[in-house]
Amino acid sequence: MKPISVGLVGLGTVAQGTLNVLANNREELARRIGREIQITHIGARSDRDGVDLSGIRVSRELMDVAEDPEIDVFVELIGGCDFARELIEVAIDSGKHVVTANKALVAEYGNDLFEKAQQKGVTIAFEASVAGGIPVIKTLREGLAANQISWLAGIINGTGNFILTEMRDKGRDFADVLKEAQVLGYAEADPTFDVEGIDAAHKLCILASIAFGIPLNFDAVYRQGISTIDLMDLDYAEELGYRIKHLGIARRTAEGVEMRVHPTLISETQLLANVNGVMNAIQIHGDAVGSTLLYGPGAGSLPTASAVVADLIDVARALTVDLTNRVPHLAFQPTHLDDVSILPIIETLCPFYVRLSVRDEVGVLALITRTLADHGVSLESVIQKDGVEGEPVALILLTHTVRERDVLSALAKIEQQIFVVGKTVVLRCEMLGDTV
Amino acid sequence: MKPISVGLVGLGTVAQGTLNVLANNREELARRIGREIQITHIGARSDRDGVDLSGIRVSRELMDVAEDPEIDVFVELIGGCDFARELIEVAIDSGKHVVTANKALVAEYGNDLFEKAQQKGVTIAFEASVAGGIPVIKTLREGLAANQISWLAGIINGTGNFILTEMRDKGRDFADVLKEAQVLGYAEADPTFDVEGIDAAHKLCILASIAFGIPLNFDAVYRQGISTIDLMDLDYAEELGYRIKHLGIARRTAEGVEMRVHPTLISETQLLANVNGVMNAIQIHGDAVGSTLLYGPGAGSLPTASAVVADLIDVARALTVDLTNRVPHLAFQPTHLDDVSILPIIETLCPFYVRLSVRDEVGVLALITRTLADHGVSLESVIQKDGVEGEPVALILLTHTVRERDVLSALAKIEQQIFVVGKTVVLRCEMLGDTV
Repeated sequence: MKPISVGLVGLGTVAQGTLNVLANNREELARRIGREIQITHIGARSDRDGVDLSGIRVSRELMDVAEDPEIDVFVELIGGCDFARELIEVAIDSGKHVVTANKALVAEYGNDLFEKAQQKGVTIAFEASVAGGIPVIKTLREGLAANQISWLAGIINGTGNFILTEMRDKGRDFADVLKEAQVLGYAEADPTFDVEGIDAAHKLCILASIAFGIPLNFDAVYRQGISTIDLMDLDYAEELGYRIKHLGIARRTAEGVEMRVHPTLISETQLLANVNGVMNAIQIHGDAVGSTLLYGPGAGSLPTASAVVADLIDVARALTVDLTNRVPHLAFQPTHLDDVSILPIIETLCPFYVRLSVRDEVGVLALITRTLADHGVSLESVIQKDGVEGEPVALILLTHTVRERDVLSALAKIEQQIFVVGKTVVLRCEMLGDTV
Repeated sequence: MKPISVGLVGLGTVAQGTLNVLANNREELARRIGREIQITHIGARSDRDGVDLSGIRVSRELMDVAEDPEIDVFVELIGGCDFARELIEVAIDSGKHVVTANKALVAEYGNDLFEKAQQKGVTIAFEASVAGGIPVIKTLREGLAANQISWLAGIINGTGNFILTEMRDKGRDFADVLKEAQVLGYAEADPTFDVEGIDAAHKLCILASIAFGIPLNFDAVYRQGISTIDLMDLDYAEELGYRIKHLGIARRTAEGVEMRVHPTLISETQLLANVNGVMNAIQIHGDAVGSTLLYGPGAGSLPTASAVVADLIDVARALTVDLTNRVPHLAFQPTHLDDVSILPIIETLCPFYVRLSVRDEVGVLALITRTLADHGVSLESVIQKDGVEGEPVALILLTHTVRERDVLSALAKIEQQIFVVGKTVVLRCEMLGDTV
């Protein structure tokens, strides 16, 4: 069979990984798909040391690649939204299939891009946009296609997981570990995207759409970062049998869909709690399969390239498939996406971890538990830490599953009490079980 | 689009699960694939209580279903090899695609069946044959298609994992837990298939073929069961920081391919070591992606049905794909399978756990370590258990990575010594790292 001709823009980490994988596994790939994948045109504003592009046409104008009539597939690996979007639109307009690793672009502009691709009869493949080398998009769209997905929860930002793992294992504080992560190249100079959950929110938005068949809705994802996580709370959580992970959680309920990224307590017996360092993992719950989990490297040159090249293979195979029989971009037929409401965070139903700083006085615990009970909040565990005489003590509460609104109302009332002397910490827990 | 018409033989657990999934998720499935999946013909020798087959043609002669010209896809869920094979051959001959959950059939007769299907231009889908609801076949064939897979290791028999988990957690012995597993329905009256590793060997054989692009070769899989595992060794392993799991392992080396099912020590920090009860998990290592892991229920009515129905969806989508662009049965083009040699178990390179029962005499340890060293076997750890005065003591050795032949030669020599007074236990370890 005729080789598939690929144009690629970008020459960063993932692009270099893609060139390496295609070169290293050239023969094996041909054994798999019965044809060769050839990069015939690269768009890069400048050369990179050590990257051999001999035999490949190179353009300084990236748009030349998007417009090149000789290529079958356009691979976008420049990142960012504006120019990447423009390039992809031109590629689609000229009838090319597209492969991208750009999570921000898919999460924020995917609805329009997919509609455009659909009209033109081409595919946009984006496995590499979520969780690097883990084929979670294929698993949700195809492997688990028999299921109604009820929820998924994932560690989908390696930088954040590295920081929380180091804090817990070594007792180091956030700022200290962040600095190391920056030195190691895990975190950017501006770490906001990673530690404030924006990157995870992009990925969660994509996963939720594919899991539930709903349009992409990035703005509706609730976000809370890990920069304010206190070592103390990692320790108290541990005492209760929990670990704190920065999770992206999507859940379908009778009232709508939850999409939220926040630090979360999960039982130490869960596999997710044992995913350490920069690794990613996503637990998916479907009505037929029950709970499954996928684990692997969520970033990096070669792992992400693994997903880019898998997409290239899929696209090569789908060249002859009629449009109606292709796997739809968001797993469900575009005419049958379900525009359900996204629930405000205050409607979340889960157990809560609460740390109150109170004066060590008689009757304090009684008053607190009474106030919580008045708001329908019952407790699973209470830990009171003995403090220094005359100093405030930490009171750690773990509630049963309750609605966030009720916990916050009760706490607002409790915080008016004179014996509450410091900041109250509230964190959500997830049971990750068959039911909420 | 016209509904896809499915004929199904069998009315056991998985068949009932398949009917349930198709009924429960009918609307959602249509939203996904843009057409309905209709079971139009069922072959079952007798009715089953509580199974509603109204509106479906039912035949007592299963061959009537395989021959039915009205169906697009033939689903084989009767198990066993002889008749199942005959039915599938007839279905293929009459141009039908096939979906099966039959691991023994695929492992033992897959080469011929796939060749026949290829000739007739139809597909045999068999995701449900390995690890129930975990889409591991799709992941290997498609999700990780960019990779050269170097090894995979899996807990692929839930019964065995349940038994080992209970033995470790509760200190119960093998026979005791097996009896409970039979009562719970996890183990058959004749447990040989599960506990002696035959079931796992069927699955491993399939996974290895897909991972490496080699013909199915069930007879070449080395098998060692768990029925002789002693509680004592679970404890000693734990002391060394390891757990014993019944793993299926396939590895590609420069000399050939290893395929082996046996009890294995793995570090307690590995995710695989923390897969408990009846759950399955497969760790896969590829040159681009690094290490990934898939976890989920490896058996059961609905989880296995999840895989059967996912295959039906894939087949429905592939109806219009030309043969050359389909995903090949064994992941690689049938003309490009690589008939490499399967290595004898004695060539295995790994660390070994050895428990010797010896008299507590001066110089014993020195003589043992000297003999091992003479055979090129060096030690990572030694534990000597203090025994009762005059009684033999247990000597636990953990070797560095060495060749099995060398360990066995050394032990044969050591066992000739008069101070060795009991059975020697030898178990393989796996590091599950980037290198052996």
